[in-house]
Amino acid sequence: MDVLQRIEQALEAAVTKGMGDDSPPMLQRAVRHAVLTPASRVRPRLCLAVAMACGDDEPAVSDAAAVSLELLHCASLVHDDLPCFDDADTRRGQPTVHRAFGERLAVLAGDGLIVLAFENLAWHTLRHPERLAPLLMIVGRAVGLKDGIVAGQAWECEEQVDLSEYHRQKTAALFAAATEAGAAAAGRNPAPWRTLGAMLGEAYQVADDLRDVAGDAEALGKPVGQDAAHGRPSAVAELGVDGALGRLVTLVVEAVESIPSCPGDEKLQALVIGEMQRLLPPPMADDFMRQLSAARG
Amino acid sequence: MDVLQRIEQALEAAVTKGMGDDSPPMLQRAVRHAVLTPASRVRPRLCLAVAMACGDDEPAVSDAAAVSLELLHCASLVHDDLPCFDDADTRRGQPTVHRAFGERLAVLAGDGLIVLAFENLAWHTLRHPERLAPLLMIVGRAVGLKDGIVAGQAWECEEQVDLSEYHRQKTAALFAAATEAGAAAAGRNPAPWRTLGAMLGEAYQVADDLRDVAGDAEALGKPVGQDAAHGRPSAVAELGVDGALGRLVTLVVEAVESIPSCPGDEKLQALVIGEMQRLLPPPMADDFMRQLSAARG
Repeated sequence: MDVLQRIEQALEAAVTKGMGDDSPPMLQRAVRHAVLTPASRVRPRLCLAVAMACGDDEPAVSDAAAVSLELLHCASLVHDDLPCFDDADTRRGQPTVHRAFGERLAVLAGDGLIVLAFENLAWHTLRHPERLAPLLMIVGRAVGLKDGIVAGQAWECEEQVDLSEYHRQKTAALFAAATEAGAAAAGRNPAPWRTLGAMLGEAYQVADDLRDVAGDAEALGKPVGQDAAHGRPSAVAELGVDGALGRLVTLVVEAVESIPSCPGDEKLQALVIGEMQRLLPPPMADDFMRQLSAARG
Repeated sequence: MDVLQRIEQALEAAVTKGMGDDSPPMLQRAVRHAVLTPASRVRPRLCLAVAMACGDDEPAVSDAAAVSLELLHCASLVHDDLPCFDDADTRRGQPTVHRAFGERLAVLAGDGLIVLAFENLAWHTLRHPERLAPLLMIVGRAVGLKDGIVAGQAWECEEQVDLSEYHRQKTAALFAAATEAGAAAAGRNPAPWRTLGAMLGEAYQVADDLRDVAGDAEALGKPVGQDAAHGRPSAVAELGVDGALGRLVTLVVEAVESIPSCPGDEKLQALVIGEMQRLLPPPMADDFMRQLSAARG
């Protein structure tokens, strides 16, 4: 079973266990729509990659960590799409939850997914109770009021916005949690794994910006040139294409070099680089690999 | 320190630890408005009463359980008050969170309070890691997608509404969790404590209905006669005043008789009865006590 299949099965199981047949039928449909629409599952894949590099001694705990991160990510998308925020019509190629099921069910589905993310951790750590608190605190911090997704989103409501803080929190928080949670799920000390996630969170953001100027709309499944068209801040607007590619190389080198010594460290390094290469349009991917080799000596 | 003071201090500490000085300032204000407005704290008081009856061997864990229940209750009020649900202007004698801070911060404050409720359990069970999973599952169930507050609220979005299920979930879920969590926080088996909370949840609802027909608006701090004026379902509309009072007596007898044997069982019985007596308008309270004595032989 490949990793994506493993994640989809664990998500399906969590949603089924979390609701049961007696939940209100429309709520069940809204939650399934929010979670089980095809998606890249970047965060849970990263979490499992780290868990596997650390030995993955209890796959049920690793799955639970990965699933909880994705449930929280889905919850944040459902609430971000609400009319009072982005008022978005589509998400992952489907109507947003509030367009398909109404605003009330979108609020409730998001709330319920947050609760389910935490319940799911408890259900799967009964054989390893000492792993529950670290996992809970890692994912809680990633989405919470202090420096998690909720805080990041709330900076949008301030008149004096610290935009760097805002972007760091919105993009990096769940990535940093993904690597920490992968290690904690496998019984390792999570702290040394935080840098990898934080660097990759920023790297994905830069890669996204590069795809927006150089990508193929059909291959990406979404229109390109959107950042420039909407005057959005992006690494390309700030640094130019070459500068942004250089920044990406630096971030990936830092990410790869931060990987703590563990049974699968070399495999994980190769996975991280291959994933980033795959994200870029082909000519840019070649450039990226050349510069990366040079930078790593 | 009396129990209410203990709860207010623990709520203040949880909110402060959960945000820190770096959270967005408006979010901090919205969360404090949602949580720290004077309120009856019925659920955390019930939780602590049970924890104390069970010995309260780790007050920090009992406080954490009580606080988490109240944070989740506050989160549900903030989201219930949103324009897409009740569109309420006031709550606890203050403007609702979305009226005071806007809809976006109301959504985010509610989300963040749900996250904080779970983080708070983890922070305070580090010395008793075996108590975290039971507590997490008790409070998660009370608010979750299956038969918690989210499910109860989502029944409002169904065309074919099972109203009894809806009311049970919205009123009884957190009460049942309060007694279970109080026992679990003190290291006891929570299961036998569920009946007490479920009965009291319904009893508080009936007492509220009785106050709405027989109470004094000034003493209650809210207008009376609202159920009849809005054609809302209530125990009084269904059973009449005498029938509702009889129902209340039955519920309190069942509640009191369900209390498991424990160091403080007799004190807890007296507390439950005294609390219910205090809720009723004086002449009705006398009737209640007479009927209760007769029913208990």
